[in-house]
Amino acid sequence: MKGADTLICSDLNFNNEEPIYIQIENNIKEMIEKGRITSESKLPSSRELGKLLGVSRNSVISAYENLEANGYIYTLKGKGTFVAKRKSVSNRGFNVDWNSKRNNYGKTLEELDIIKTELVWKKGMISFKSIAPDETLFDTEEVKKGFLNRMSIEGNKLLNYGYAQGYKPLIELLLKYMKEKGAKIDNKDILITNGFTEGLDIVLATYTKPGDTIICENPTHNTAIKIMKSYGLKVIGVKMNSNGIDLEDLDLKLKENKVKMGYLIPSYHNPTGIVMDVEKRYKVYDIFKKYNVPIIEDGFNEELLYSSSHVLPLVALEGDGNSIIYIGSFSKILFPGIRLGFILGDKSLISTLESVKRGRTIHCSFLDQAIFYEYLNSGVFSKYIKKARKHYKEKYEFTLAKVKEYIPYEEVFGEGGLHLFIKLKDINARKVLDKSYEKGVVFTPGDIFYLDGSGRNTFRIGFSRLSDEEITEGIKLIGQSIEEVMEKESLD
Amino acid sequence: MKGADTLICSDLNFNNEEPIYIQIENNIKEMIEKGRITSESKLPSSRELGKLLGVSRNSVISAYENLEANGYIYTLKGKGTFVAKRKSVSNRGFNVDWNSKRNNYGKTLEELDIIKTELVWKKGMISFKSIAPDETLFDTEEVKKGFLNRMSIEGNKLLNYGYAQGYKPLIELLLKYMKEKGAKIDNKDILITNGFTEGLDIVLATYTKPGDTIICENPTHNTAIKIMKSYGLKVIGVKMNSNGIDLEDLDLKLKENKVKMGYLIPSYHNPTGIVMDVEKRYKVYDIFKKYNVPIIEDGFNEELLYSSSHVLPLVALEGDGNSIIYIGSFSKILFPGIRLGFILGDKSLISTLESVKRGRTIHCSFLDQAIFYEYLNSGVFSKYIKKARKHYKEKYEFTLAKVKEYIPYEEVFGEGGLHLFIKLKDINARKVLDKSYEKGVVFTPGDIFYLDGSGRNTFRIGFSRLSDEEITEGIKLIGQSIEEVMEKESLD
Repeated sequence: MKGADTLICSDLNFNNEEPIYIQIENNIKEMIEKGRITSESKLPSSRELGKLLGVSRNSVISAYENLEANGYIYTLKGKGTFVAKRKSVSNRGFNVDWNSKRNNYGKTLEELDIIKTELVWKKGMISFKSIAPDETLFDTEEVKKGFLNRMSIEGNKLLNYGYAQGYKPLIELLLKYMKEKGAKIDNKDILITNGFTEGLDIVLATYTKPGDTIICENPTHNTAIKIMKSYGLKVIGVKMNSNGIDLEDLDLKLKENKVKMGYLIPSYHNPTGIVMDVEKRYKVYDIFKKYNVPIIEDGFNEELLYSSSHVLPLVALEGDGNSIIYIGSFSKILFPGIRLGFILGDKSLISTLESVKRGRTIHCSFLDQAIFYEYLNSGVFSKYIKKARKHYKEKYEFTLAKVKEYIPYEEVFGEGGLHLFIKLKDINARKVLDKSYEKGVVFTPGDIFYLDGSGRNTFRIGFSRLSDEEITEGIKLIGQSIEEVMEKESLD
Repeated sequence: MKGADTLICSDLNFNNEEPIYIQIENNIKEMIEKGRITSESKLPSSRELGKLLGVSRNSVISAYENLEANGYIYTLKGKGTFVAKRKSVSNRGFNVDWNSKRNNYGKTLEELDIIKTELVWKKGMISFKSIAPDETLFDTEEVKKGFLNRMSIEGNKLLNYGYAQGYKPLIELLLKYMKEKGAKIDNKDILITNGFTEGLDIVLATYTKPGDTIICENPTHNTAIKIMKSYGLKVIGVKMNSNGIDLEDLDLKLKENKVKMGYLIPSYHNPTGIVMDVEKRYKVYDIFKKYNVPIIEDGFNEELLYSSSHVLPLVALEGDGNSIIYIGSFSKILFPGIRLGFILGDKSLISTLESVKRGRTIHCSFLDQAIFYEYLNSGVFSKYIKKARKHYKEKYEFTLAKVKEYIPYEEVFGEGGLHLFIKLKDINARKVLDKSYEKGVVFTPGDIFYLDGSGRNTFRIGFSRLSDEEITEGIKLIGQSIEEVMEKESLD
């Protein structure tokens, strides 16, 4: 018999992280695989090895049991434990080039993933990229309270299987909420989704085919463009002017193309921040109705409407109709870490989407939904909204003032929300971005929001998570960068 | 001027649920839309209406503000408030037949949605359908503790935007966990998903094209079949015998077809419950390697391996290879309401899938991930697993005993886990189901797990959530139903 005794676990230094028996098992396994203990070698008894290693005999027994179950060793009654004859594992595997196996869907989502393609924020930089809410406004105490309350009422149920459609009390609350916003809900229902992204994704996945045409504002939400393209859709953009979508261009494009659906952001449009007034909303709706084209309405940021009374969402304008799919999201005004959104739509549409969701993610986190419901229902929500509105209105006005002071813009858009949109005169915003990056400031170049490669002279400024000092400093530096780009161009 | 004064809000009965101003606003809006107050009618002043309705003037002012913003009324300074000229909304909308607009993907997911197609459990029935864990084993106190602990450490961060890849500490913990199971992780990474369903869905969405061929065990997990079909894949099934997949049939089918990927459930196979022994795993892996076909390994229920020591997952057999995509899920052994799973795979594959996830659901609930991490890390998990294993082992043995006593089966499969699989001799299980349903017992007919319409004589019994009395009663009644079906058939 070969001298397994002296070899076994001789190089084993125990760590504190893994269970002892696992470390013994892995060590012996590796020795066998590397051929350092040859097959048929006799292993020490569990008592002997335990003594040798200074560990409990039970640990060795467990290790030996697993090794035996996996065919590395075998026991002959009365004789001992031996290394089995086996192939080495190390050279076993074969390799796949996964990159080359991506289909168009995967390639598109990876190529349009701005987290990977755009300039990365580095610590210490002033970033205007984010349009996420200010986390210091979040009341974590309220979230805790909400959680504990829900857990005591129905803890076990919440930890159990959930319904694909969503947490019933939350659905009821949201139906009521949409009714208060003017929507007729008798022929409608709600599906809870993982934010706006899943809402749009699931609608397009179910109701479009590659090659279908979608019409939307140009510019529009870059994530929406990414998702539309991932489904192989042809996306047609409609011009925007300073009060929103251009009605003549909309009518013309709907006439000239066989359009499957429209995608619109009537309030706090991303990236321009424009809020469509109610007269325009009626006209837009009537044009879509004329061509029998349903609309996906992105209810982005409506809750932050601090510059006017609440404006009717499009879905409120269709009366008893069912052609509008309203996607709401609370990520931008509450806790984005609790990524929840919802779709309000025709009952049969929601029923279909519920089945689709069951085939993709089954259901959203029930804990999240329950906490969210508790928060909305507790009255803390309206207090938070008041506070948030005031806070963002001040930030908006402050940022706008700084922009007016330091940025030679051609036009600035935005009626509130969490961002401004700036159009420069004949200056490439990415060149400005490069210079700003050197100065420690980063923002979102506007061309990613355009469908046709235009908008190179635009950029979006998100101010929601910055202090007044950072905003002042950052805008100043962007202004300087613009000057430098202008000088360079006049010298060229 | 028409007598608007006497009509306004005359039929308005205030409820306690909606804000006063909303109720006033909606009432006036409805009257205008229905033409009951005509355009140009003068409305009472806010003071007058407040007095008339017995509410604060401010409520009326708010209502009037919103009505004006939405174009229903207008104010002439010094003259008063009037109803605007406008179209009625009620007849505005147009209707879409959403059912007819579903694409094949949507139709497939709806048609194969067993929640909608199979017999529904009614209150009071004994249901063997569920293979979900027993919720009374869950320690909600530990979940609460975990949550509060995480919230105090990093509450604000958790409520903020999350990373698509997942909560870093959880990812590290799972990498270590997989390493302990024998997998080489240097060239691998992990993506956190909404359970197994999202894991499989996202892999197929990214790496397959309609018409591609997938090979799997026959029978297999019905949800997996549903998802594979939703992507237009051709699914080829390999025979199973009592110890798992048939190696000759596997080799033959891989030889005869150009297969894109395999999908296997080596441990506690769903629906048969079979656990492939380690020798067979090596052989299966070598066959796939021979044909250069990657494998999606469904790590379903491995943690419940109470009948043997832990068996190496397939991913541990490939050494430094990267051809296996391991999908793990904790829903079946922990809290299914916290629907979390993970994919362990090649680094570039995980990077691509991270982008795809960002384009679908952005990230999983961070609260869920943090609580889950806390639970796994706290040592409570191993205590729970011990308890769960003992509990389910007893239930398994009890159920098996009852099946042997009351069911005239041809074969019964299952080595543990949360279910048994029964094959009858020439008896249609759905006929048995119909009779059982009448007696108040329901179970899952086995044909939904088969690819080729076979398995009509099989059914799955999930025992995880039933008491011993219910199991005894239920199995007895199923036995009776089988007898009745047999009698009827011999009479026919």
